[in-house]
Amino acid sequence: MSSLTIQIDRTRLLADLEVLAEIGRGSEGGITRRALSKEDAAARNYMKQRMVGAGLTVTHDEVGNLRGRFGSGEHAVVMTGSHLDTVPAGGRLDGPLGIVGAICAVEALGRVGFSPKRPVEVVVFVGEEGSRFRRGTIGSAAISGHVEVEAIHALVDGEGISFRDALSTYGDEGPRRPARARKGEVHAFVELHVEQGGLLEAEALDIGAVTAIAGLVQRQLSFLGEANHAGATPMHLRHDALLAASTFALEVERIARELGGGAVATIGKFEVFPGGKNIIPGRVEAICDLRAPAAALLSALDDRVCAALGTAGQARGVSTRESLLQRVEPGPMDERVIATIERAAAAAHVKSKRMISGAIHDTLHMAELCPSAMIFVPSTGGRSHCPEEETAPEALERGCEVLARTLAELAS
Amino acid sequence: MSSLTIQIDRTRLLADLEVLAEIGRGSEGGITRRALSKEDAAARNYMKQRMVGAGLTVTHDEVGNLRGRFGSGEHAVVMTGSHLDTVPAGGRLDGPLGIVGAICAVEALGRVGFSPKRPVEVVVFVGEEGSRFRRGTIGSAAISGHVEVEAIHALVDGEGISFRDALSTYGDEGPRRPARARKGEVHAFVELHVEQGGLLEAEALDIGAVTAIAGLVQRQLSFLGEANHAGATPMHLRHDALLAASTFALEVERIARELGGGAVATIGKFEVFPGGKNIIPGRVEAICDLRAPAAALLSALDDRVCAALGTAGQARGVSTRESLLQRVEPGPMDERVIATIERAAAAAHVKSKRMISGAIHDTLHMAELCPSAMIFVPSTGGRSHCPEEETAPEALERGCEVLARTLAELAS
Repeated sequence: MSSLTIQIDRTRLLADLEVLAEIGRGSEGGITRRALSKEDAAARNYMKQRMVGAGLTVTHDEVGNLRGRFGSGEHAVVMTGSHLDTVPAGGRLDGPLGIVGAICAVEALGRVGFSPKRPVEVVVFVGEEGSRFRRGTIGSAAISGHVEVEAIHALVDGEGISFRDALSTYGDEGPRRPARARKGEVHAFVELHVEQGGLLEAEALDIGAVTAIAGLVQRQLSFLGEANHAGATPMHLRHDALLAASTFALEVERIARELGGGAVATIGKFEVFPGGKNIIPGRVEAICDLRAPAAALLSALDDRVCAALGTAGQARGVSTRESLLQRVEPGPMDERVIATIERAAAAAHVKSKRMISGAIHDTLHMAELCPSAMIFVPSTGGRSHCPEEETAPEALERGCEVLARTLAELAS
Repeated sequence: MSSLTIQIDRTRLLADLEVLAEIGRGSEGGITRRALSKEDAAARNYMKQRMVGAGLTVTHDEVGNLRGRFGSGEHAVVMTGSHLDTVPAGGRLDGPLGIVGAICAVEALGRVGFSPKRPVEVVVFVGEEGSRFRRGTIGSAAISGHVEVEAIHALVDGEGISFRDALSTYGDEGPRRPARARKGEVHAFVELHVEQGGLLEAEALDIGAVTAIAGLVQRQLSFLGEANHAGATPMHLRHDALLAASTFALEVERIARELGGGAVATIGKFEVFPGGKNIIPGRVEAICDLRAPAAALLSALDDRVCAALGTAGQARGVSTRESLLQRVEPGPMDERVIATIERAAAAAHVKSKRMISGAIHDTLHMAELCPSAMIFVPSTGGRSHCPEEETAPEALERGCEVLARTLAELAS
């Protein structure tokens, strides 16, 4: 494969990303496409036309995944793709790059007359972000069989709208193929994605070959102190929920740093009640998000954070409660696919490194189905899930070329 | 005065408080009477009828203060009173006790045939809580001349309604007397109030003789870090605004405890953005509320807190901003009135202690006009500004008796 001369159409790649970036763009620059929304459907429709234009055979399945096939025959397919839905006010690359990039990669392979032994299927996964329904990575959970199609159809969003009803407005025509892959149907899966962190940029590298997707524990936390008058309550008679929660937040950071090994911990939701400027906080509601690339490390992180919760409250007479929101096991990637990505990077004359994905991706579920891995490109300033999410055009192009070379080897 | 046999009508005292507690009562038990609202007017109307029933001569002034006079003559008046407006979902004693208690005290004096040399005036101050207009202690600010009547009339609430317009719906009949007291018009002022803290209860004391009302500095604070993906951003590449703000919150507590001398510091408003469970906080908006009973101590507290703000941000690459919302100077009480309260407590055979008021009251402005002090009764559990605000019936009665004896001495 290394002998192929792959030329990505960078203009087309950037133009497609630009079209998608305008669908759901808010006044402050962020892009909001909730799963199965009008904006999501518009972006999907654009990609469907692009697939048709690229000569792919387009189908769609029971949960709304869109698939475009390059090549034919009865061999197990090589799949690649990503998602079009976004977090609220998100960026333009998280998801779209892995779809637009896949189509551009396939087109580049077509231009050099590459004829795959195995068909290559570009997939638009439905509902990867968890921002509308109770869970994310919905499309890949259906394909891998991680979640039953019926259970997915029964998901309900915050306004009481079921996934099934939302899907009916999505605009697919014709019959829906089964979502769940048959045994032996998929040969391998690879996803091109922005890193969403700052490691590649910090080390001036072009490509990350992902060796594992970190697992996740999210816990809902409550700190219950006593609201009281800010002026009339002496410091030593307070049960300040904010101070207990602040102590905990700093301790969580300390624990994650001490454990190392790719463990990260974040308190992103943190609400203080009643919130009056002259009232001592009586209650804090928070969510902590813990991640680690290995199950044992994730459990150790979780155990120590739970212990710290009690300690942070006790010292101030603030009671604490916690409940598990979700636990997702870490997903190791396939060594053969990782090595294929590394060979592809070398053939494209770009520097790569093996790394962990701290973020969850559809690849996590695809890895339960078939040999899988991911290709990361650098995120400028390490920014993601925000309007500033960006990657240099040359880096996007290099990522596409590495994807094309990886697909070519996997499909041969 | 100590020879008087004062008998407070406890049944009447509790019944009046109960009537007021039902005006503006919400479904969760809290009482909401915003200044000059329908509920505030209803409570005020009830007190007006009570004043008339108690034989007081009722007048009202340009800003809506209601006044009921006991006794007559040209001598400078002894004033006492408090407010009827509440914080949102507040308690039943903060304010009403100082009005109902004053009427019951005057009635008790009347029953024993006490004839004051100086008239005693019971005042219902308008708008003490700052929860509707831009400022609180409005009525006392007008009487003391701290704020011009025109400036008060021009105050606007959050919905754009002016104080002047709101006042026109308040239901006063007949001419309005000038609000601002003439020179020499007021001989002394005393206010009966719940402590709103837990010191009296902790020391099993009945009465607090307030020696100073703490001054206040409130600052708006911003912590500006960088929102980013919770999974993909390594711990060492983060600029987490929540962690910077947490460090600051704990440091503020430490500074207040270290300074002592009645200094207290609270961060009651604390909002974290964007607030997604899987997004590193990029921004925190908070308000810190600093109080101290002496100007030099308040300045020292403020200086050290401002210095801590910069330090908390720098360590994490989080920038910080602050702006002054308000500074109110501490108000020392009058030694002669304080001593009068102590004598009254002794005559009533109840234990008292000198203490600071951490909360601001109308007495702060009255002290600019005439010798003033406050009588505190214990707050059960130190709770206030909440539905749980409570004081034992015997303690309420004892507070009224001490007020009656204080008024009797001041008016003689």
